[in-house]
Amino acid sequence: MAVVAQLSPSSYTETTRLSSSQLSLSSTHLSSLRRRAFRPIIRPRNPTISCSVNQVQAPVAVEQDDPKSKTNDCYGVFCLTYDLKAEEETKSWKKMVNIAVSGAAGMIANHLLFKLAAGEVLGPDQPIALKLLGSERSLQALEGVAMELEDSLFPLLREVKIGINPYELFEDAEWALLIGAKPRGPGMERAGLLDINGQIFAEQGKALNAVASRNVKVIVVGNPCNTNALICLKNAPSIPAKNFHALTRLDENRAKCQLALKAGVFYDKVSNMTIWGNHSTTQVPDFLNARINGLPVKEIIKDHKWLEEGFTETIQKRGGLLIKKWGRSSAASTAVSIVDAMKSLVTPTPEGDWFSSGVYTNGNPYGIAEDIVFSMPCRSKGDGDYELVKDVIFDDYLRKRIAKTEQELLAEKKCVAHLTGEGIAFCDLPEDTMLPGEM
Amino acid sequence: MAVVAQLSPSSYTETTRLSSSQLSLSSTHLSSLRRRAFRPIIRPRNPTISCSVNQVQAPVAVEQDDPKSKTNDCYGVFCLTYDLKAEEETKSWKKMVNIAVSGAAGMIANHLLFKLAAGEVLGPDQPIALKLLGSERSLQALEGVAMELEDSLFPLLREVKIGINPYELFEDAEWALLIGAKPRGPGMERAGLLDINGQIFAEQGKALNAVASRNVKVIVVGNPCNTNALICLKNAPSIPAKNFHALTRLDENRAKCQLALKAGVFYDKVSNMTIWGNHSTTQVPDFLNARINGLPVKEIIKDHKWLEEGFTETIQKRGGLLIKKWGRSSAASTAVSIVDAMKSLVTPTPEGDWFSSGVYTNGNPYGIAEDIVFSMPCRSKGDGDYELVKDVIFDDYLRKRIAKTEQELLAEKKCVAHLTGEGIAFCDLPEDTMLPGEM
Repeated sequence: MAVVAQLSPSSYTETTRLSSSQLSLSSTHLSSLRRRAFRPIIRPRNPTISCSVNQVQAPVAVEQDDPKSKTNDCYGVFCLTYDLKAEEETKSWKKMVNIAVSGAAGMIANHLLFKLAAGEVLGPDQPIALKLLGSERSLQALEGVAMELEDSLFPLLREVKIGINPYELFEDAEWALLIGAKPRGPGMERAGLLDINGQIFAEQGKALNAVASRNVKVIVVGNPCNTNALICLKNAPSIPAKNFHALTRLDENRAKCQLALKAGVFYDKVSNMTIWGNHSTTQVPDFLNARINGLPVKEIIKDHKWLEEGFTETIQKRGGLLIKKWGRSSAASTAVSIVDAMKSLVTPTPEGDWFSSGVYTNGNPYGIAEDIVFSMPCRSKGDGDYELVKDVIFDDYLRKRIAKTEQELLAEKKCVAHLTGEGIAFCDLPEDTMLPGEM
Repeated sequence: MAVVAQLSPSSYTETTRLSSSQLSLSSTHLSSLRRRAFRPIIRPRNPTISCSVNQVQAPVAVEQDDPKSKTNDCYGVFCLTYDLKAEEETKSWKKMVNIAVSGAAGMIANHLLFKLAAGEVLGPDQPIALKLLGSERSLQALEGVAMELEDSLFPLLREVKIGINPYELFEDAEWALLIGAKPRGPGMERAGLLDINGQIFAEQGKALNAVASRNVKVIVVGNPCNTNALICLKNAPSIPAKNFHALTRLDENRAKCQLALKAGVFYDKVSNMTIWGNHSTTQVPDFLNARINGLPVKEIIKDHKWLEEGFTETIQKRGGLLIKKWGRSSAASTAVSIVDAMKSLVTPTPEGDWFSSGVYTNGNPYGIAEDIVFSMPCRSKGDGDYELVKDVIFDDYLRKRIAKTEQELLAEKKCVAHLTGEGIAFCDLPEDTMLPGEM
């Protein structure tokens, strides 16, 4: 089984580069009981810059050396000694949260990190530690990102650690936002992309399994994100499968916007928007259950031909159109949709509404095949968890399209069997279903 | 007098391209009384995409055509008809604010716009209209930006207008964030840059004078920003000179971070940080008045040689170092510093503290030459206005350095006399004082 992630210089996506010996060590299956004991052995000793946190509380008039001379494992001002106890008491701050981000030197992360650090997602009383995972190639760029985070003086940002080893960066992570993935090179088959990126997510799953919080919420953004999320959760057996998400929120947001545009209403009037299935061209934006001003979409938009034919295509072509206009892929709005996905898990879902997320299908009430990651309608109490929405309706059109994206995900699953511990891979993926404008 | 802004394809900065006939028309000096009558004549009729706002309030089950077919002057979902009255009443929202941003297709704006739209600056009850000014060359990219803003479903964002005509985009603007400027080409003298960018800001000053809110707050980011701000305010005689700012907040933030690093404290312990003078290498980060944990910096940092020699250089070299590491100039942290600058004007300054901004020197209590734009310590009641801080101290070292940056700004002013209505320009700028890493 070849498990070496070969990375060539790429555009905005970033990931880890591990040697095959490191991977063969870390691919040892570890039970959650054994993982602590094994940790020193399985950690590849790659360069990492991290921060330790202690205290100089009162102002002390002493000349101090450059902190870097004392320790080589922290970044800039975030190496400095300070105590959050004071803030926790005087400002009623919560306990610090570790957020790990892969592909951290890329453009999506460049938008996302500054939102996280500004408290836009978790609120003004939540101190944050950012653990930035990049590749050897992007380590310098990661330093640049850390410098800009320093210069931004975010009061809530208390730790920044950069590095290329997920076993170090994911330690005690409460959130893992897995953006980094290898972009598809010229002439590369979708099966090849599944294999190469699958290996990255298998490795990151193992790292999460070994060192992350047992409560970690994982949002997979790197494509093909559904199957990457499946691989990741299969390699992290001691973390609940329910904690893994594949991002379909940008698709949901775009679908809401296009329905609003067609109906002539502002986008905040569109609710109950489900994206079913794979984050690919087989995705199913559900206009049967979606509502505009509380009414079924079909009662507001009478152009049903457009709903059945133009609507989905318009959403899917948006990424490609954006690259044509803007010259780059949609980094800012993707980052916003990650923020939305996180907020949806930590905020109670408004009464009667729901959101979409690619989640594990076991126990789903829709009759969708078990043991895949499929975008479905979810509600949350705001505790980080979610439940699937039961009161949705289906018609033949919706059923047929859901079956198609389900078949695709089952085929993708067979194609990565070697990465999920289910035997020998068999790839039969005739169609190219990558979304235009995505790598 | 040559007043044609010749723009070549550039990196991330954007600006307007106007024909000489348009400029000669619009350079007519208009009194505030005459400006409304003149408006139709002075507006160059360049392509602009804008939005009108009316209302479809209750859900209406009608088939609707593409809104674009009805009007060609609005962008996507922001063309749609809706009524803010409902939100103003039910959600206690404030009256919508127009924010104009130049260089809106560039990287700094790409970070800033999403922060503004998310309500990060003006709060969760402030609906926002974004007026995005670009160049003919960047109009497609601006569409891409507007598409990503649509796809982000920001509830507060109620209007997006894109175009290349400041007379249309600045209409009723309460904020004008002037980021767009021509980057210095190979072999271009600083005097040449002052002239070319000065013309852009003269034109934008005239446009603000003609159509913006009389209360508009202008933050000039495009370099050389102090003198650009001076040119801008001189061309907008009916707007108070006090309303114009040149951004030195990133310098202030970087200075705070470096002092914190040296002192071994977290950056939130550094206060009272002034940047004096020009946003150039002659800038003076003031460690005499700055405080760490409430104590004078010199009592905490005993390495006075570093303060006098290393400190300023470290701050100034940061932009260049960042380009080396990250491969791009500091877009994200610059956007954060613009957010900081805006917040400082709409939030009461914490007791005993202050912030830096490049502002008009008339009436300053420090003995600095009048009639230039100079970064100085400011306090605000949070009403959008500011007052200069009186209780600052000076020593010979500080006085000497302030005098140097003052001389530079006076020389720059002479060099743009043709753009401020003060006669014939005379340029004597021997030194290259552009900050490394800036265009």
